[in-house]
Amino acid sequence: MKKSIVALSALTVAGLASAQSSVRLFGALDAGVSYYDAKTTNLTTGASTKQSSWRQSSSGYNSSRLGFLGTEDLGGGLAAGFWLEMGLNNDTGDAGQAAGVGSGGSTAGVPNTGPALFNRRSTVSLSGPLGEVRLGRDYTPSFWNDTVFDPFGTNGVGTNLLTSAHTGDLNSIRTSNSVGYFLPADLGGFYGQFQYGISENVKTTGVASSDAGRGIAGRLGYTNGPVNVALAYGQSTVLDIPAVSQSKVTTANLGAHYDFGIIKAFVQLSQIKYTTDFNTPQAGTELKRNGYLIGLTAPVGPGVIRASYTVAKDSLSGVPDPEASKLSIGYVHNLSKRTALYATASRINNKNGQRVNFGGAGTAFLTTTPGNIQSAGVANGYDMGIRHAF
Amino acid sequence: MKKSIVALSALTVAGLASAQSSVRLFGALDAGVSYYDAKTTNLTTGASTKQSSWRQSSSGYNSSRLGFLGTEDLGGGLAAGFWLEMGLNNDTGDAGQAAGVGSGGSTAGVPNTGPALFNRRSTVSLSGPLGEVRLGRDYTPSFWNDTVFDPFGTNGVGTNLLTSAHTGDLNSIRTSNSVGYFLPADLGGFYGQFQYGISENVKTTGVASSDAGRGIAGRLGYTNGPVNVALAYGQSTVLDIPAVSQSKVTTANLGAHYDFGIIKAFVQLSQIKYTTDFNTPQAGTELKRNGYLIGLTAPVGPGVIRASYTVAKDSLSGVPDPEASKLSIGYVHNLSKRTALYATASRINNKNGQRVNFGGAGTAFLTTTPGNIQSAGVANGYDMGIRHAF
Amino acid sequence: MKKSIVALSALTVAGLASAQSSVRLFGALDAGVSYYDAKTTNLTTGASTKQSSWRQSSSGYNSSRLGFLGTEDLGGGLAAGFWLEMGLNNDTGDAGQAAGVGSGGSTAGVPNTGPALFNRRSTVSLSGPLGEVRLGRDYTPSFWNDTVFDPFGTNGVGTNLLTSAHTGDLNSIRTSNSVGYFLPADLGGFYGQFQYGISENVKTTGVASSDAGRGIAGRLGYTNGPVNVALAYGQSTVLDIPAVSQSKVTTANLGAHYDFGIIKAFVQLSQIKYTTDFNTPQAGTELKRNGYLIGLTAPVGPGVIRASYTVAKDSLSGVPDPEASKLSIGYVHNLSKRTALYATASRINNKNGQRVNFGGAGTAFLTTTPGNIQSAGVANGYDMGIRHAF
Repeated sequence: MKKSIVALSALTVAGLASAQSSVRLFGALDAGVSYYDAKTTNLTTGASTKQSSWRQSSSGYNSSRLGFLGTEDLGGGLAAGFWLEMGLNNDTGDAGQAAGVGSGGSTAGVPNTGPALFNRRSTVSLSGPLGEVRLGRDYTPSFWNDTVFDPFGTNGVGTNLLTSAHTGDLNSIRTSNSVGYFLPADLGGFYGQFQYGISENVKTTGVASSDAGRGIAGRLGYTNGPVNVALAYGQSTVLDIPAVSQSKVTTANLGAHYDFGIIKAFVQLSQIKYTTDFNTPQAGTELKRNGYLIGLTAPVGPGVIRASYTVAKDSLSGVPDPEASKLSIGYVHNLSKRTALYATASRINNKNGQRVNFGGAGTAFLTTTPGNIQSAGVANGYDMGIRHAF
Repeated sequence: MKKSIVALSALTVAGLASAQSSVRLFGALDAGVSYYDAKTTNLTTGASTKQSSWRQSSSGYNSSRLGFLGTEDLGGGLAAGFWLEMGLNNDTGDAGQAAGVGSGGSTAGVPNTGPALFNRRSTVSLSGPLGEVRLGRDYTPSFWNDTVFDPFGTNGVGTNLLTSAHTGDLNSIRTSNSVGYFLPADLGGFYGQFQYGISENVKTTGVASSDAGRGIAGRLGYTNGPVNVALAYGQSTVLDIPAVSQSKVTTANLGAHYDFGIIKAFVQLSQIKYTTDFNTPQAGTELKRNGYLIGLTAPVGPGVIRASYTVAKDSLSGVPDPEASKLSIGYVHNLSKRTALYATASRINNKNGQRVNFGGAGTAFLTTTPGNIQSAGVANGYDMGIRHAF
Repeated sequence: MKKSIVALSALTVAGLASAQSSVRLFGALDAGVSYYDAKTTNLTTGASTKQSSWRQSSSGYNSSRLGFLGTEDLGGGLAAGFWLEMGLNNDTGDAGQAAGVGSGGSTAGVPNTGPALFNRRSTVSLSGPLGEVRLGRDYTPSFWNDTVFDPFGTNGVGTNLLTSAHTGDLNSIRTSNSVGYFLPADLGGFYGQFQYGISENVKTTGVASSDAGRGIAGRLGYTNGPVNVALAYGQSTVLDIPAVSQSKVTTANLGAHYDFGIIKAFVQLSQIKYTTDFNTPQAGTELKRNGYLIGLTAPVGPGVIRASYTVAKDSLSGVPDPEASKLSIGYVHNLSKRTALYATASRINNKNGQRVNFGGAGTAFLTTTPGNIQSAGVANGYDMGIRHAF
């Protein structure tokens, strides 16, 4: 079949010519059993209801995923690389369906409605002495602060309240259509990145064009021996869903951890600001969410103890500020470098009408409407599972 | 880009640190051409209609699939492992879309409506001297009896009538959100497994909660030299689609095969019992489907002859029991250990208003409503294809 | 867990027994930034509007993809092989969603509405001294002429107008449910293929059955030293969407290229003919699109200059023939065999009510309705990106 193969090669290009060793397959499966409960009180009648659920959870310690990556040395300090990574929910076999979540910068500023496969990351990049240029769907700079400076990263019931709040908007985890630049490595401990998300809107002469979907963000940090500190900032324009108008979302985040040897201490300050009509009742006003986290990890033999305390407070005019705090403690037992057992317990306290509780695989702000007649006083979440990386 | 890679490693964990050799890629493509026909008779007028269709079939001999698996030796007899396997329809390029089918134990007891990728199996497990614990989407115990004790397994026109009937409910092939336990290997020929599917329903105080989606099942068998025999049982609660009420589905299955050398003999007894409103006309009643299979395989040079006779009878009050029987014969010609050509012919006889015929890639009960004015007397199905495994 | 593995092997067959080396993983990521504009003039008022858009484009030089393939030597000159290839849009992480596009031969003649994964190609084949038989979803013979005899292949803004037109029907790129035959390689430079797409429609006695979805196509060529010439022909029956009636689509295509050393010259002649009600206003009439392309590629150090001029003219009764011409020029700079930077600029001129402009990742006929009050005079498209193959 030599001739037909010749024809095929016109399309498959170097793909067929390259050795298989240029691709590295990697991933992780993290599955467990979780229990969540929440007590809701009707503020008018005083009656309370308890809701609870057992779940098979996915990604309680690390995100389940499957990926393909590779790099090519181009000579002269230049390298090309690609990274394709899908999410996995191994309780059901779903993979990469949540294209829309976190897809700021997508066409017209609304999330992708169709399923995406390599929704965690799909990038191609060129790197050299001056840094790296990266194109495609990628993590936002803010996200790295969220995950690096939290003892629980961004997985499971223990993750901090501000990170969770992030999942409610389009710009906090990943950005489609992004053009990224990363500083080179040899800057004496300084590191940084800049990201621009193309809106892909159509501009018509004489018609006001939309910025929806455009994102701009950056992160600058310093690491040296036991210390790591970074500041992240992002601003993006989103369409509310159902799309009626634009909102501006601004995220600022300062985080640090310091390794004392016996323990590693974590601290994080975050602010998320929504302007315009993010919540219909507050149309035209600004919604601010301030929060902080303090935490630690402590190695214990082959394991690690993790703990954190985090607070998030909303600023709304005319009402007491809705507030939630969360205390989490957990233990990870490493059976090997690749396989670990883990357990996490977390408790949320809501005040002033705030209603944070435990959703599927983490925590989520339900409603922040002031004067809400229902209030979740206390919510508990427990994860117990296994993480196997490959 | 050393610094940005450091940041990434916080998320990708051991995935990047591990060698690629820990993952095994496997799969099979099975494609063929099939012809189906069915003769339907109007019981009132006596007029008959013949319908037929040529198809490009997928998975006529073995299920087309693509998978990734791996195990890690943890020392002390312990091992961790993962298994990700998607289905494939290589006539169209579809992969793993049928998430809902067979997904008993899914959230709220209804099938997953979104597409799943690794819908055949997506599990992570820990095994040791006491057995294996497995979490994720997995095959039901009943399914293993269906496929192991049928000369045609669960693929193509030759597969037995009870197996086919299974595809009509949510609990017979795979279960999402499952926690499984497998007996260890050194029990003198005895083997077994137990499976629990978590319903994931929310329980609210003072409100009757739903069991829909919960499944419980087990299988116990014995194999030694030429003999292999196993009993499987499963009970699950499903929501009918469109979901209005719950039904209980109970499956019991006893199968065996014995290798006489010249031929290998197969026998299987099955019962599926639906209670409550499985079929609207029979709301409140119980629907029972009893069936059996006898079959054989016989090696002939590099090939194998396969044959089976199977009967399935429904029990409905007040009407003659709808019944179907099926005679199948086929030949598999192995070109190598990985590549085979195959052909199967199968003929179904329907009685008492039963309407079993050949659907896409197998057989399916159409309607079992008694007194139905249409009756498919005879249906024929033919598969001819190639199976290439890798 | 030996026993449960035994049970699994009954299903996974040779897949687990084979060495991993039998599978080759390949692919490419091609990402870039594109700018499109188009000037539309209202033919009645004379007022003109300019529209423009920046995009992150995917596949501007080669199609982004991820694939798995393998072959097995069966001895005696026989070989079995499989090919699974998904498309990728790495700006969003989407993969293989466009199942319906180009899926002539799909069930009932309408495109697959569900997402497909390996939508570029999913085939299993058996080859030997007499040629190759291939089953599954595959490229049409016409497509190979389109891509081989165009300096810009079928990617990006530079691709020829007839190729673009193709994307508007179901039969021009790929066919599901296909049975293909390829001539053997040792025919003194002659090569060829034949393809049949099964309609999968149900035939009922006494009822006129539909041909929708059936496709038949072939390609015959000759290559020797610097010359390569091929003729492709295809005819298929499609249902319009929304499906109300059938249309016949006939494609004929003659292409050649000749390598003079300093430059390689390309020439292509194409005709696409739709009969019956392709466009509602022209129901019952025949729509013909004739076109040609002349082009060249010229090696320049590690790079290649590419240029083409292409014209497409529609034949409609009673109106001046809508016509578009396109001039494209580009440069590909190879950083290595696997990695290249590229830039392409293209300009379209529309006449007689034609409205061709630049869509997402290429060009698309918008409307060919005569007398349309809007006419795009000139449209420009620019691609700039990186292609990394692995």
